[in-house]
Amino acid sequence: MASDLKEAGGLTRLFVAATLEPGATVTLDDGQSHYLLHVLRAKTGDRVLLFNGRDGEWQAEIAIAGKRGVALSVRARTMPQASVPDLWLVFAPVKKTPSDYLTQKATELGVSKLQPVFTRRTIVTRLNEERLLANAVEAAEQSGRLTVPQIGAAMPLDKLLAIWPRERPLYFCDEDGDALPLAEAVRKTGEGAGAILTGPEGGFDPAEREVLRALTFVTPVSLGPRILRADTAALAAVTIWQSVKGDWRQN
Amino acid sequence: MASDLKEAGGLTRLFVAATLEPGATVTLDDGQSHYLLHVLRAKTGDRVLLFNGRDGEWQAEIAIAGKRGVALSVRARTMPQASVPDLWLVFAPVKKTPSDYLTQKATELGVSKLQPVFTRRTIVTRLNEERLLANAVEAAEQSGRLTVPQIGAAMPLDKLLAIWPRERPLYFCDEDGDALPLAEAVRKTGEGAGAILTGPEGGFDPAEREVLRALTFVTPVSLGPRILRADTAALAAVTIWQSVKGDWRQN
Repeated sequence: MASDLKEAGGLTRLFVAATLEPGATVTLDDGQSHYLLHVLRAKTGDRVLLFNGRDGEWQAEIAIAGKRGVALSVRARTMPQASVPDLWLVFAPVKKTPSDYLTQKATELGVSKLQPVFTRRTIVTRLNEERLLANAVEAAEQSGRLTVPQIGAAMPLDKLLAIWPRERPLYFCDEDGDALPLAEAVRKTGEGAGAILTGPEGGFDPAEREVLRALTFVTPVSLGPRILRADTAALAAVTIWQSVKGDWRQN
Repeated sequence: MASDLKEAGGLTRLFVAATLEPGATVTLDDGQSHYLLHVLRAKTGDRVLLFNGRDGEWQAEIAIAGKRGVALSVRARTMPQASVPDLWLVFAPVKKTPSDYLTQKATELGVSKLQPVFTRRTIVTRLNEERLLANAVEAAEQSGRLTVPQIGAAMPLDKLLAIWPRERPLYFCDEDGDALPLAEAVRKTGEGAGAILTGPEGGFDPAEREVLRALTFVTPVSLGPRILRADTAALAAVTIWQSVKGDWRQN
């Protein structure tokens, strides 16, 4: 019997690379096949949802479920393609677990791009971008997104600032300053793209703060009177932007 | 030489039970003594900050650092007592790690009380309230708070609703509904106390939603178009409340 494959969050959704159109056959990779067969105990005829970031969301039925993996037959489109608001999160990577968490949560909250930067006080010196992407894919699948956020190549902050697209406002979460509350700062700028910059544990170096504050596309902002951990600050800032300027305004 | 004991987030802060006044001697508990001596390698003369939720924040100097533990001599007050806005977070406990995380983050973001509730779809049936408190204390120490949030005794949702203080608006994060965005709903109610209710993985049961929506003190609210994990929803909701009605409005 055909039935919908479900998880805690609802119907199982999978991100795939293949083009999605009626009648297409999609072969899953090893990880996804294993997950379907051995974690969810899927069988032939079970239905899942697929998306690829381009063609919307589609219902698909398991055509083959065997030792060589899983192949799905694409049926009907359940949702047209849609994107999240154009918000980048620029963050100094923190330790492994908080970085995983940050990636998952920022994806759920709806960022279009995750951009790791190395600042003077960033302790982490290497970043597993594949791991970030895997976390982002999983969160996109579970949150009902139709896109996976882009993962920018990690680079030093000064390099990023040198190539920054100047029409995109960068809200710099400055815990030491007398900056405007983020919500107010966001409300003051026009519609359109945005970006949030959060520092590492220990914050930004005074020289970095000075450079940032001198740039015309940077607005220093405050996130309340308490000291927030790096990942808390990033998620709070994304939430406020979504609430004031993003797609959390709609019903 | 006397010197300030520092951690990543700044000067070491400790929450203690004792009364804080000039010249008082405060003996630390075993956990705190161990942390100071063996993690931070503190020695006699080192300075830390103390708070107890009542007397503000005080500088204190290590008078004794030995096998029997640490005793501190209280010096001068560094900050008068202050409280966070009167916001409760009512949440269905999730698994152990997300519950730890939720407690830490909600404390940093500035809730006055954490109230666990059991809903129909709550999978966790027991809760280690001591563990929640330990997480809250640690986050209060690191975030610069002068209070530790109250931890309410876990109880079933229907019981909590029966004893609810009706003058306190309860914003019910209703992911299935056509509810108002939280920011808008919060803006519409007057100044004062508030509370946020978030569900477990899998959301609220239809019967629960009906009961909640019929209560005069409950306002169903939305947190955007994506499906958020239980802990993400709770933290996003606290952030929005703080931004619109709490102490994130000040500079």
